[in-house]
Amino acid sequence: MPSVRDVARKMKLESPQMAATPVELRNAALAAMRDALLANKDAIFAANREDLAAAETNHVAPAVAHRLLFDERKLADVCAGIDSLIGLPDPVGRTLLARELDEGLVLRRVTCPIGVIGVIFEARPDALVQISALCVKSGNCAILKGGSETARSNRAIFSVLRAAALEAGLPDACLEQVEAHADVSELLGCTGLVDLLIPRGSNAFVRHVMDNTNIPVMGHADGLCHVYVHEAADLAKAVRICVDAKAQYPAACNAAETLLVDRPIAGRFLPQVAAAYAEAGVTLRGSDDVRAIVDCEPATEADWDTEYLALTISARLVDGVDDAIAHINAHGSHHTDAIVTEDDAVAERFMALVDSAGVYQNASTRFADGFRYGFGAEVGISTGKMPPRGPVGLDGLVTYKYLLRGSGQVVGDYASGRNAFHFRDLEA
Amino acid sequence: MPSVRDVARKMKLESPQMAATPVELRNAALAAMRDALLANKDAIFAANREDLAAAETNHVAPAVAHRLLFDERKLADVCAGIDSLIGLPDPVGRTLLARELDEGLVLRRVTCPIGVIGVIFEARPDALVQISALCVKSGNCAILKGGSETARSNRAIFSVLRAAALEAGLPDACLEQVEAHADVSELLGCTGLVDLLIPRGSNAFVRHVMDNTNIPVMGHADGLCHVYVHEAADLAKAVRICVDAKAQYPAACNAAETLLVDRPIAGRFLPQVAAAYAEAGVTLRGSDDVRAIVDCEPATEADWDTEYLALTISARLVDGVDDAIAHINAHGSHHTDAIVTEDDAVAERFMALVDSAGVYQNASTRFADGFRYGFGAEVGISTGKMPPRGPVGLDGLVTYKYLLRGSGQVVGDYASGRNAFHFRDLEA
Repeated sequence: MPSVRDVARKMKLESPQMAATPVELRNAALAAMRDALLANKDAIFAANREDLAAAETNHVAPAVAHRLLFDERKLADVCAGIDSLIGLPDPVGRTLLARELDEGLVLRRVTCPIGVIGVIFEARPDALVQISALCVKSGNCAILKGGSETARSNRAIFSVLRAAALEAGLPDACLEQVEAHADVSELLGCTGLVDLLIPRGSNAFVRHVMDNTNIPVMGHADGLCHVYVHEAADLAKAVRICVDAKAQYPAACNAAETLLVDRPIAGRFLPQVAAAYAEAGVTLRGSDDVRAIVDCEPATEADWDTEYLALTISARLVDGVDDAIAHINAHGSHHTDAIVTEDDAVAERFMALVDSAGVYQNASTRFADGFRYGFGAEVGISTGKMPPRGPVGLDGLVTYKYLLRGSGQVVGDYASGRNAFHFRDLEA
Repeated sequence: MPSVRDVARKMKLESPQMAATPVELRNAALAAMRDALLANKDAIFAANREDLAAAETNHVAPAVAHRLLFDERKLADVCAGIDSLIGLPDPVGRTLLARELDEGLVLRRVTCPIGVIGVIFEARPDALVQISALCVKSGNCAILKGGSETARSNRAIFSVLRAAALEAGLPDACLEQVEAHADVSELLGCTGLVDLLIPRGSNAFVRHVMDNTNIPVMGHADGLCHVYVHEAADLAKAVRICVDAKAQYPAACNAAETLLVDRPIAGRFLPQVAAAYAEAGVTLRGSDDVRAIVDCEPATEADWDTEYLALTISARLVDGVDDAIAHINAHGSHHTDAIVTEDDAVAERFMALVDSAGVYQNASTRFADGFRYGFGAEVGISTGKMPPRGPVGLDGLVTYKYLLRGSGQVVGDYASGRNAFHFRDLEA
């Protein structure tokens, strides 16, 4: 059994080969992976049933157990996902900048795969398929470590995927799976061999990864999103958005945790939204001035910094857009924050000054998702400041390199003034 | 005296204000900064003379002392640099993607400043001006820590720059300077307040920063660049490129450290390049098969991993482009590597498979520089895999956010199938 480091070293050596594969080959491999999943579905379902039985024996929480399931419907979903990836344009080799520096000296900034990506993800067999497919389409090699609760399903799915990818002609090191819990720490130590780590899962786990590696990490540790209802809001829209942002899927990172309401409309709006929340099963926790208007649980200072991931939301009153912006920038996680207003100038200010990866006007924070952005799929959502930021799809799995094609030019001629740059941008 | 942490906290709070400044204001501030430098040049030159005198007393090496100088010529250079920055288009607010997700639901990916940038740079007063100007143009707040050998010059220049920027109307926290050596460690600990660190200087220092902070770091620790002379090279071009890449400025990170020569042409090429190197004062260290052709010092395995930063270059023979690629990917620092060949198909393969931020055909590695790429100026060169990569100018000092403008849309309607996305890309 090779060590994680050995796997990463081999992958690093072969990653330029993977990066240079033509998109036709990568698409053919994706099609082969899809067909192989369909052809081997009985064995995969059988492995998944064993995982589900073990989960029951181990009294895994029903919410988690639900994610472990890989059935006909999940299979159809991942196959549709692969088909949609095949249909997307090649993210590799796109010219981002083309500039003639001087006669016969042309610079191009061209997208290229990142190289070797380590993905550590939760116990969801469909995630294994999605991540593998995204990495193949983007020309990256990937080391995959899935949750132990689906070890049997992962093994069955991965062996099918990998065999199909190799059969189609991808390099041997394109996809590898590691299984042991200790493999994670070893993976975090593969500086120089692994170019990017993508940890998914609990906040605590993502933070653990960030704190214990020198490899760049793409991920988010928190999802503390806000909805701010401005005094010029359409209150009916606001109620629908507030309910959707909280209750449509409360465990998601893009669900709202805090509601900010402009003081002048609080008397009209709060009773409406409180009634809608009650109907949706949402518990409201309010500041004193909120509780003076509607009956709800009291919110403390700690609530403004709490990601509930449950049917609970905190609420406070604010004095206009700047007060809302200040609250969000101080307490938010820079994930996704929304304003509800019909005043576009106010929305403009909110969108310019809120320091988050996603800033919305009159839409639910729940739209922050690679599929909903039209990226085909996402490998995760980044709340870091540096790119890739926000939902990360194919575009976020490529970087770029500069290609300079000359005809013998040397810098000495430009330093001496014999030659001069003329910087003429070309059609990309 | 506020602590670095206090400075960073204030800056973080004000950075959205700085990010939202219109480009006209940022350009006006740059013009004011330029004018203020010119108006106060006597005081600045006087401070610089004190630094130079102290350097002489402290027996600072002449190569370093040369960089400390800030005179009429350097002043004219930095003012020309500011003028060129003023002339560049606004890097902020550019729409990178515009997509209608559904009727009345429009997503935009728009560039925005990174926020708070900490720059730790070498003892060069002109660098202080360049970095401040780049940060102002890109709408970022910056905490600047310069080399102690130019403390007096830095203080004089910084007070002039900051006063002019504030007078022009930029937020109070736009630019701050810290001076004490201990401030660096404090800066490295400002996770969550500083969004990006840019360390410049020695390899050891950059690596120290990378190893001692959780803040994203943009920089390069090494510059081990190669020139590969392919058998289909124009040998006259190859000689000029080899000499320029090594000798035009050997202390630069983009200078070549290793020369790879295809075996079939070694007998013809090596004597020519060895003669040219001898004339340029370059010491050649060769592998055994190189030394069988030309007389030179022996190279050991360690030479392939050595950045000389001096008039020394190592050379070995290779068996074709794949052998060259393997050597470069194994020993290089992923900075900039060049092939000299008239065979475009071979160059294509080299450029696809060499895993570096810059890959050149028939041009000197010394072109890897923000000015020479037409970026107006650079804040540094990144050899990391994730963007920004290569020479980093204005474009690398912005990130992006997603703006979604809707008319009350909620995710529930799409999850239930009542609504469907149609993903129509719009003119950006």
